[in-house]
Amino acid sequence: MDFERPDRALCRAELEKYRLEFEKYKEQNLQLNLARGNPSKAQLDLSMKMLDIVNSHSVLDSEDGIDCRNYGGLDGLFEAKAFMAELLGVHPNKVMVFGNSSLQIMFQAINFAMVDGVSGCEPMMFQKDRKWLCPVPGYDRHFNITMKFGFELIPVPMTDEGPDMDVVRSYVEKDPSVKGIWCVPKYSNPGGVVYSQRVCEEFAALEPAAHDFRIFWDNAYCVHGLYPDHEDTIPDIVGLCEKAGHPDLVYEFCSTSKISFPGAGISAVATSVHNQKGFKSFLQYATIGPNKINQLRQVRFFKNLANVKKHMAKHADIMRPKFELVESILEKELGGTGMAEWTKPRGGYFISLNTLPGCAKRVVALAKEAGVTFTNAGATYPYGIDPQDSNIRLAPSFATPEQIEPATEILCTCIRLATYEKLLEK
Amino acid sequence: MDFERPDRALCRAELEKYRLEFEKYKEQNLQLNLARGNPSKAQLDLSMKMLDIVNSHSVLDSEDGIDCRNYGGLDGLFEAKAFMAELLGVHPNKVMVFGNSSLQIMFQAINFAMVDGVSGCEPMMFQKDRKWLCPVPGYDRHFNITMKFGFELIPVPMTDEGPDMDVVRSYVEKDPSVKGIWCVPKYSNPGGVVYSQRVCEEFAALEPAAHDFRIFWDNAYCVHGLYPDHEDTIPDIVGLCEKAGHPDLVYEFCSTSKISFPGAGISAVATSVHNQKGFKSFLQYATIGPNKINQLRQVRFFKNLANVKKHMAKHADIMRPKFELVESILEKELGGTGMAEWTKPRGGYFISLNTLPGCAKRVVALAKEAGVTFTNAGATYPYGIDPQDSNIRLAPSFATPEQIEPATEILCTCIRLATYEKLLEK
Repeated sequence: MDFERPDRALCRAELEKYRLEFEKYKEQNLQLNLARGNPSKAQLDLSMKMLDIVNSHSVLDSEDGIDCRNYGGLDGLFEAKAFMAELLGVHPNKVMVFGNSSLQIMFQAINFAMVDGVSGCEPMMFQKDRKWLCPVPGYDRHFNITMKFGFELIPVPMTDEGPDMDVVRSYVEKDPSVKGIWCVPKYSNPGGVVYSQRVCEEFAALEPAAHDFRIFWDNAYCVHGLYPDHEDTIPDIVGLCEKAGHPDLVYEFCSTSKISFPGAGISAVATSVHNQKGFKSFLQYATIGPNKINQLRQVRFFKNLANVKKHMAKHADIMRPKFELVESILEKELGGTGMAEWTKPRGGYFISLNTLPGCAKRVVALAKEAGVTFTNAGATYPYGIDPQDSNIRLAPSFATPEQIEPATEILCTCIRLATYEKLLEK
Repeated sequence: MDFERPDRALCRAELEKYRLEFEKYKEQNLQLNLARGNPSKAQLDLSMKMLDIVNSHSVLDSEDGIDCRNYGGLDGLFEAKAFMAELLGVHPNKVMVFGNSSLQIMFQAINFAMVDGVSGCEPMMFQKDRKWLCPVPGYDRHFNITMKFGFELIPVPMTDEGPDMDVVRSYVEKDPSVKGIWCVPKYSNPGGVVYSQRVCEEFAALEPAAHDFRIFWDNAYCVHGLYPDHEDTIPDIVGLCEKAGHPDLVYEFCSTSKISFPGAGISAVATSVHNQKGFKSFLQYATIGPNKINQLRQVRFFKNLANVKKHMAKHADIMRPKFELVESILEKELGGTGMAEWTKPRGGYFISLNTLPGCAKRVVALAKEAGVTFTNAGATYPYGIDPQDSNIRLAPSFATPEQIEPATEILCTCIRLATYEKLLEK
């Protein structure tokens, strides 16, 4: 169909047809959910033996002799740093390891900038008109942290090898009120983009106008490929920045949340020793330190990157069929119609789908009516506003294949309905 | 000896005598530490079985059906709330339960006031000349949080039944720039004071000039009596405030850090539903939520207050002899000399000792020279400045009796030295 000059009679006929299908779905009173980027129970079961590895018979001293039961150790155990460093491909002296929420560390890193200021700059709470770059589509929880702290959120378009670096440079190198950028460099949320070597090098080469500008590099999916036999890699951004003469430019984050237990993992930040020093001088006021016994538990269970990779291959075996199921239904129902396009990610937790402009909110609302919950349309944009109203994030990890199949079919029906409705408005 | 008109010859002779004793101690190259308020290894061993209670065979759903391994649950599990509520003597609907650091929750509660503002008031980061009341002597980590956030710290004298409430009222009810007060209501750090019913009621009856004033009631030692057969009690401050018509006046904090493992306990805050709502609307940006598996571990191990009390009686059996040892040496060496006075706490982690004015720093420095570390003199006052330079905090929990004995004897020698030095200055 020609979307510019749609055949109105045909649109009405199709709308009628899919409206009937939709009503039949509604009658089933389904309750399905593809909104949550949570691992499934089968994935959580893979780590159950971790709960036995620290027990009443264990030595609870760390390798360097700290009694992990007691107070102390603001930035984590030596062996936890070594372990997380291997995951990130950085030197252990670049790493600090904390509690169960890497989001909390990102929040605190910005909090530190707000209260203390970074590298001798004025505390950000006293700096007016601060801005933060948000590659779109992106992760709502990232955007919301910087919104909370009063930054103006600037959307930056994504390409298929990372954020548009011309746009990034035009802000970062010219405007001293731009203080940071959110990045998910591997299997980006939701687009699944793996940043290219060139993009990473251009990040490291940035010459920010603001001395307190930092890249927030959330390597959340560092070992979360769906095709372990054909691994994707990104360069060590901390090393790249150092090599480019900008050692303090980046904080890299990761966690074992989606490797072990999302509520009970450990998180890490990799950054220059200078950045660590500043951050720790703040954190010592904010906490008595992380749960070190849980750090022992994680490290003694996984031991090293090789084991993590074996473990993540089992995750992939559970996840991959779900992604392929969604993609095959989308292809079967909507392939070649021009009504939607979607990503075929090689890792991470999401499929990113774009409808025709102006349809996404309507699709999500219709699906809700038929008993299927998706992430709110717009959530992948700053302030929850997708200017095109076209992006929908699909999260197939938590649901079973038996749930994913009808949920995706309903999604396709809703996309058809919303599309024909939109065409009839013309 | 008449300290106003000291016998200078006698002072010199005594100084000489104790200087020799001091030199002998120095020759022993001791390395002792009474600075840290850490539980001892023997105390930590009491909770080892907790490490077995959640294992690979456990049901990891909470009582209300949440899979504790996964994401979700910003304010803690239902059963964790019920458990911590029993410890605090409040209704479970007043309680939120978080991770391993109650200090972190206090920090975040002030952070929330800074960023969002409390009860519709302007965010505190935009309010100039904020003040915070600090009963003295008190806890340096408390004082430091409010210092970090730019509050002017106002010392408030302690009496033997709590802070001087006339002073508290004169600030809180007259000065709208006073935004909060730190309290350790049971076995205060370091004075060991148990707030009286009258003081608690007067706190609940406060009519603050600032709508965003809050009492920070750190009930850190709620079940930490040294004499379990003769328990000390304080009233439920959350209930008292509600009864007095000020339901939002207080945040009460506690944790299981010094009940189970200091690095791996769980923390709680009890406050009105209205305060909870505000705090949670902030926290949802700051974290993905607490480690729920660790909440299960704690709750399934202790089950209820009765078990906690039995458990804490074992802690007391380890702690009590250490406190009594310090007190008996102080009494034997310095009793009746007028050179020092000290508390005989019925619970908590500290003995608070006062030297003659102007001697505390010198005592701690001398002790250091002889190989014994105490908390820095002044640490118990805002900005680390004890205007009398007389307070020293003794922490006998971590050391063994074999370490405590020489450490306390050296302390007494150093007090004598510093005292005679001071008298000879006159």
